[in-house]
Amino acid sequence: MTDKLWGGRFTQKAAAWVDQFGASITFDQVMAQEDIEGSLAHVKMLGHTGILSQAEADQITSGLHALEQDLAAGKLHFTVADEDIHLNLEHMLTDKIGSVAGKLHTARSRNDQVATDLHLWLKHRLPEVLAAITNLQTVLLTQAETHAGTIMPGYTHLQHAQPITYGHYLLAYFSMLQRDYERFEFNQKHTDLLPLGSAALAGTTFPIDREFVAHELDFADLYHNSLDAVSDRDFALEFLSNAAILMQHLSRLAEELILWSSYEFNYIELADNFATGSSIMPQKKNPDFAELVRGKTGRAYGNLMQLLTVMKAIPLAYNKDMQEDKESVFDTYTTIMGSLDIFSGMMASLTVHEKRMAAATTNDFSNATELADYLAAKGIPFRQAHAIVGELVLQGIKTQTPLQEMSLETLQAANPAIEADVYAELSSEAAVNRRTSLGGTAVINVQAEVVRGKKILADRA
Amino acid sequence: MTDKLWGGRFTQKAAAWVDQFGASITFDQVMAQEDIEGSLAHVKMLGHTGILSQAEADQITSGLHALEQDLAAGKLHFTVADEDIHLNLEHMLTDKIGSVAGKLHTARSRNDQVATDLHLWLKHRLPEVLAAITNLQTVLLTQAETHAGTIMPGYTHLQHAQPITYGHYLLAYFSMLQRDYERFEFNQKHTDLLPLGSAALAGTTFPIDREFVAHELDFADLYHNSLDAVSDRDFALEFLSNAAILMQHLSRLAEELILWSSYEFNYIELADNFATGSSIMPQKKNPDFAELVRGKTGRAYGNLMQLLTVMKAIPLAYNKDMQEDKESVFDTYTTIMGSLDIFSGMMASLTVHEKRMAAATTNDFSNATELADYLAAKGIPFRQAHAIVGELVLQGIKTQTPLQEMSLETLQAANPAIEADVYAELSSEAAVNRRTSLGGTAVINVQAEVVRGKKILADRA
Amino acid sequence: MTDKLWGGRFTQKAAAWVDQFGASITFDQVMAQEDIEGSLAHVKMLGHTGILSQAEADQITSGLHALEQDLAAGKLHFTVADEDIHLNLEHMLTDKIGSVAGKLHTARSRNDQVATDLHLWLKHRLPEVLAAITNLQTVLLTQAETHAGTIMPGYTHLQHAQPITYGHYLLAYFSMLQRDYERFEFNQKHTDLLPLGSAALAGTTFPIDREFVAHELDFADLYHNSLDAVSDRDFALEFLSNAAILMQHLSRLAEELILWSSYEFNYIELADNFATGSSIMPQKKNPDFAELVRGKTGRAYGNLMQLLTVMKAIPLAYNKDMQEDKESVFDTYTTIMGSLDIFSGMMASLTVHEKRMAAATTNDFSNATELADYLAAKGIPFRQAHAIVGELVLQGIKTQTPLQEMSLETLQAANPAIEADVYAELSSEAAVNRRTSLGGTAVINVQAEVVRGKKILADRA
Amino acid sequence: MTDKLWGGRFTQKAAAWVDQFGASITFDQVMAQEDIEGSLAHVKMLGHTGILSQAEADQITSGLHALEQDLAAGKLHFTVADEDIHLNLEHMLTDKIGSVAGKLHTARSRNDQVATDLHLWLKHRLPEVLAAITNLQTVLLTQAETHAGTIMPGYTHLQHAQPITYGHYLLAYFSMLQRDYERFEFNQKHTDLLPLGSAALAGTTFPIDREFVAHELDFADLYHNSLDAVSDRDFALEFLSNAAILMQHLSRLAEELILWSSYEFNYIELADNFATGSSIMPQKKNPDFAELVRGKTGRAYGNLMQLLTVMKAIPLAYNKDMQEDKESVFDTYTTIMGSLDIFSGMMASLTVHEKRMAAATTNDFSNATELADYLAAKGIPFRQAHAIVGELVLQGIKTQTPLQEMSLETLQAANPAIEADVYAELSSEAAVNRRTSLGGTAVINVQAEVVRGKKILADRA
Repeated sequence: MTDKLWGGRFTQKAAAWVDQFGASITFDQVMAQEDIEGSLAHVKMLGHTGILSQAEADQITSGLHALEQDLAAGKLHFTVADEDIHLNLEHMLTDKIGSVAGKLHTARSRNDQVATDLHLWLKHRLPEVLAAITNLQTVLLTQAETHAGTIMPGYTHLQHAQPITYGHYLLAYFSMLQRDYERFEFNQKHTDLLPLGSAALAGTTFPIDREFVAHELDFADLYHNSLDAVSDRDFALEFLSNAAILMQHLSRLAEELILWSSYEFNYIELADNFATGSSIMPQKKNPDFAELVRGKTGRAYGNLMQLLTVMKAIPLAYNKDMQEDKESVFDTYTTIMGSLDIFSGMMASLTVHEKRMAAATTNDFSNATELADYLAAKGIPFRQAHAIVGELVLQGIKTQTPLQEMSLETLQAANPAIEADVYAELSSEAAVNRRTSLGGTAVINVQAEVVRGKKILADRA
Repeated sequence: MTDKLWGGRFTQKAAAWVDQFGASITFDQVMAQEDIEGSLAHVKMLGHTGILSQAEADQITSGLHALEQDLAAGKLHFTVADEDIHLNLEHMLTDKIGSVAGKLHTARSRNDQVATDLHLWLKHRLPEVLAAITNLQTVLLTQAETHAGTIMPGYTHLQHAQPITYGHYLLAYFSMLQRDYERFEFNQKHTDLLPLGSAALAGTTFPIDREFVAHELDFADLYHNSLDAVSDRDFALEFLSNAAILMQHLSRLAEELILWSSYEFNYIELADNFATGSSIMPQKKNPDFAELVRGKTGRAYGNLMQLLTVMKAIPLAYNKDMQEDKESVFDTYTTIMGSLDIFSGMMASLTVHEKRMAAATTNDFSNATELADYLAAKGIPFRQAHAIVGELVLQGIKTQTPLQEMSLETLQAANPAIEADVYAELSSEAAVNRRTSLGGTAVINVQAEVVRGKKILADRA
Repeated sequence: MTDKLWGGRFTQKAAAWVDQFGASITFDQVMAQEDIEGSLAHVKMLGHTGILSQAEADQITSGLHALEQDLAAGKLHFTVADEDIHLNLEHMLTDKIGSVAGKLHTARSRNDQVATDLHLWLKHRLPEVLAAITNLQTVLLTQAETHAGTIMPGYTHLQHAQPITYGHYLLAYFSMLQRDYERFEFNQKHTDLLPLGSAALAGTTFPIDREFVAHELDFADLYHNSLDAVSDRDFALEFLSNAAILMQHLSRLAEELILWSSYEFNYIELADNFATGSSIMPQKKNPDFAELVRGKTGRAYGNLMQLLTVMKAIPLAYNKDMQEDKESVFDTYTTIMGSLDIFSGMMASLTVHEKRMAAATTNDFSNATELADYLAAKGIPFRQAHAIVGELVLQGIKTQTPLQEMSLETLQAANPAIEADVYAELSSEAAVNRRTSLGGTAVINVQAEVVRGKKILADRA
Repeated sequence: MTDKLWGGRFTQKAAAWVDQFGASITFDQVMAQEDIEGSLAHVKMLGHTGILSQAEADQITSGLHALEQDLAAGKLHFTVADEDIHLNLEHMLTDKIGSVAGKLHTARSRNDQVATDLHLWLKHRLPEVLAAITNLQTVLLTQAETHAGTIMPGYTHLQHAQPITYGHYLLAYFSMLQRDYERFEFNQKHTDLLPLGSAALAGTTFPIDREFVAHELDFADLYHNSLDAVSDRDFALEFLSNAAILMQHLSRLAEELILWSSYEFNYIELADNFATGSSIMPQKKNPDFAELVRGKTGRAYGNLMQLLTVMKAIPLAYNKDMQEDKESVFDTYTTIMGSLDIFSGMMASLTVHEKRMAAATTNDFSNATELADYLAAKGIPFRQAHAIVGELVLQGIKTQTPLQEMSLETLQAANPAIEADVYAELSSEAAVNRRTSLGGTAVINVQAEVVRGKKILADRA
């Protein structure tokens, strides 16, 4: 009777549909290899401690190895009826080796098993993330070396401020990625913790050896509290936070590549692979991949917010809400790996319009600061120097004459302290190369920073 | 040379891999039917206006119908090589009818086509969402009718405050869902807008008839600005916002079902279908589905944040970032439909432990307010009444005697104004039924609200 | 002993500090006027229904009016000791009129009182938001009328795609704001609901008249369920969602103003009021206000996420968590009002560099589509037409000759179907004016849409 | 004329109002002390390097010290007219020492100055956060020691699963806070970086000594890229991420305190300081502070999302959007410090209802697992053991007899392998104490973990 109420859709295949809603096998199958690895270590320990006989342990081990091979060969077919990756594999193992398979679950529970799988999964992937970051850093460093002296406008408020070099600009992103690297490296600390052996929530009465399992699975440490072990998802939240910050960095670089590819800027040209063209307008190249990565920032932010929301205010220990911890981690992993690789390729292969970049710094009056500094060095107070230069710039705008093209008479009319040596200071190269303060844009600095960067990467290997 | 830099992974199958990163066919194939429908309306218009000959239009129409049948029969196989659903279908159409297929794209662009597909997709699904909400509202109303007089503790701060009825409680959720319904109904306004005919961004030079297309596709209105048409995703953001608020409501109900299923509360028992048991502890039922829905709130919040981030600060008109507009909409749709259906089934089938609920209101001193009101009605000032009752409650706690079980002597010792008629006011039923103010929990109110609710649902049909 | 544990900071002024953590008066004092208004209506009803004597009601009313005057005169000084705005005012009222003040709280609770205050507060402000949106829409419409024929490049992927008019561009934002307007208008429906009379959670035993109060406070409707009334914050979430979408729109416009103010684009010049200059580089204007509004998008998004998180999974009815519902609403209100006003001023006062905009469309080959359409109209199949034009564009790039400057011989060499009438189609004006499809960028369309927009605004008044 | 358009509100005091919108002094005055400290180090370096004469440096230093004293004495009054903290203080300095004050700004810009202020501000506060975490950890450890043997139900899905001890439970939160501590400790790495000396974006031409300044301000390292230095907000994002995760932990503990304070659980009683009572229902205590902290989780999540949104896709280097980087950091700091302190006090002062907790584990059949383990140890296969116990539990539910109260006959009727020694295993104490696996809930484990915890805290000091 109540069935009628909640409708035809539901009653017909109620059980099946509800089961599907509750099942996780559609996404947690990604951890099949980790689930098997965890089981292999667990059963080895069960044999080692005598909880299972060695014969039983061997039999289960063989079965797991067979499953591992089937998995690699793409022969495993998962089913929603078996709900999740653990039950699917348990079922398959039983099919292979019979009822002894049931003993594999001795002294563990799905709660510590699923936590172990996710730890293992991320533990295996963090080095890949670190490598992908290193890869992009390497590209940036190589390009920075090439372009240590390539002059371009430096911006604040998207307004020309002072000339910098493209190499200096690239090193800013090298530094951001360095911090990203350090964050994912730190992320390993809380990922590299073994939960297995915590059982459902309280530990187990079996004489297990968790250090043995940790050693087998190459975990650096293990959880010291069983409730924490099964209910902690900090390592996943750290990963999602780090990824959000990383994508924020890439979104800024993406924004600039898009700007620079525009008709108006025209500072770079993306390689054909990393842009889409038009048959009718062959000069046009859409920076599709830069835009897509900028858009995927939303994915990283959303996934972080998703898991933070899931974890808010749920009591200890395991709750089914936590089944929602995986898809965002998997999706974010795919997102950042793809984005890093795309950027490695894109940055390595783009063409820099060096002349256009340099030219943009010559008639934008961005050497006004240089002239003011010149006057200050001659002993003119700063505010007065500013006022003098401001007047000259206004005059230059009207006559469309950059400062460096004004005659010495014109300049001296503004202030007699100006002498012929001023011109040497007014070029963009001079402006750049005078900025030798630590971290400044001088070519010599950029070159030194490239060396420092190379050492960082070399020490990493 | 640069190839080496960005690594082995990349160079080997560079083009293919990059293409895959940019492709959307893995998820936008969900809109295949809508893409075909949009094309059918478009080509009919092209024939009607003479932009294509009737013969061409007929040929294309036949081809599209054939594709539609193949799709329904599950015979279409999409490929990443063709990037998205539009190119996949265009390719398939060409395979069916030859080069005339190319004319289908006359006077439209992928930019207005993809916007049209997403509008159509959501336009088709909003009525389903509305129906699923109505379904759950119907369940709540039926249960509220049954339980109009089922006494339970009313909570503030999760502390017993005053007795209410379970029917009254259910109607609170009926009201929330009523607002959800109205929000999704409003969502239709901005979904039911046709972008097609806006071409890439500026409109088209062909003499198209957009009203004709709107009529064919049953759109209520059409965009009046071509730039807006191809760059607007308000309708999707409204959908995601509405879904977030809806899931927030369900998360609150889920929280209560979980609490009430606990050993400590034990107010309800979920049907077997909507809980998972334990072979070893048959009395135990995990409220897995309520927990899962509570967890899926994160998904709805995350998806909203995702698209808001994507759309932040991107210039007009179309940018590739906007390819990231679909998965969150699709995922949120699946999430709310599943959650609504689960709750319809779960609420209709749970067992209410009426006696236990009622009993919880008899020794919790939640009738203290009644006694104070009684005294106030006898002319005792409020603060004094409060003090008197406070004393009695303290005494009752010490002697473990609820107010209604204290002797008249005891009560009169506290204040002589108390008479024998006081007991009639101290029962939970009396407390409930005295609250007849509009919106109050009195049984007669609940019954009247059920009637009002039924009328709302009846008017909807 | 335990005191020692949680440290010196805490023990010294423990109570005071803890109270401060729990107090809301620092921010809820913003609702002082609403709190008084709600009380005035409540006490009038208490007198009207005879729950209080008319004398009592009059006395309280006088006291409240006195408080209202003090508030307007800035004479009220709130204190954390009195926790929130309700207790502060109650205390002040008692100081004014003595203990009869306590009777004001008859038949209401802080739970329905605070909900009423927030409803009233937002109810009073939504018309201001609507007016501010109308204001900006008016500015956009006026500018669109002025610039119905001002040619500029239309972009996709930030690449020149086809010429459009600045008027057409502005109307895209007019349309976005129109939807914003409709959303805030809809927001009124769920704001304009009176919770007062629901008491703590279950209604009251006093013979109150909620319709009377609703009428006094000009509420369109009232909550029909007391639990819902005190625990609902949908109206606030709708406000925050709407504001997030609105700020998303403004962030896009801000992005474009920033781009267009750059040295490279140089399409507009912001008025001095809405930019910050530099004494040394007088030509430079930082688009600070556009940047700031773009940045404030984060505030709107964050505030939405804040309240969604607060409301997740809290049980009915009132919980102290809900005290966290106000600051984000207040802050978002300030943010959107300021942003809308800034944009009204900024858009009305900026200077359009019409020549520069138009010139940007003449040598960007964005008329390639026009030539292809021309060929198609001559009967050349689309793909072939595309190929022909593609060749010509390539040739033009090499020789730095736009299509419209190529000789007829050159064009005919590419395809003999081209005749002298082609030049008329290759100008940006022609390209714009041929796009007369509904919603297209033709000047005549823009003018018609301005008329339509004016009617919308006129009907609103 | 346009003035009319954007309305009366605007035109009257246009400039003032717009300035106010752009000003940050209302919130960045919080960094006044840091701004002065940064200036003191800067001017010392300017003197040391000879960029300023020692006399000038001394004069400025004196002025800054005077300002520092005025600030401490609450004598500084900031004004919106001077926009931000930097200009306010510069103005005040000029008032004190005349025009030499202007030389303080030599070789720096507001861009590197504001970044330095925020770095310094957070650098000064992270140790406070670490101390507040340590404080709460200390409380938890002390309570865990006291309650190492206090039996309570352990939950999964909010269902009784297996008995644990309250001490074990508290240690789960000790572990979470340990990770929080490590995250904020790591946060120091990227906070403890000096940006000063990067000037507007490109470094400076003055012969500054950044290491000198870093040493003066006790910075561990300095930025090696000037663009990165002025545009990086990673350290703030890390802080907000860490705070979000911390608040997630506290929200879970808050949830449990609220549950346990309920009439139904009644496991704890909060101290009067940390709950609010009712004059009329003196037995009632609302867990207001736990609820408030749970609610403030939204603030931490929202603030994180706010800054992530601000930073998305803004080009290098400084943009005015970044002015929106401070309030969320300040607000989150206040939120977590208050929440940590509240929890330290609340956890240290609550009363545990030990008997009630323990009693809840005796008739909930949560010893079913023990009986199954007992049977398994007797050689009965697991699945069979489960079935036997399941039958007994069902029987026990019907007869309301816990397993430990069943006669040996009854038990042996279920399976003859059961002997009298079974009763020793069925008590909650036995169940707890058999879980001696590393991380398990056995009392001996909890005691050992307390020792380990104390060592961690001791090493920290």
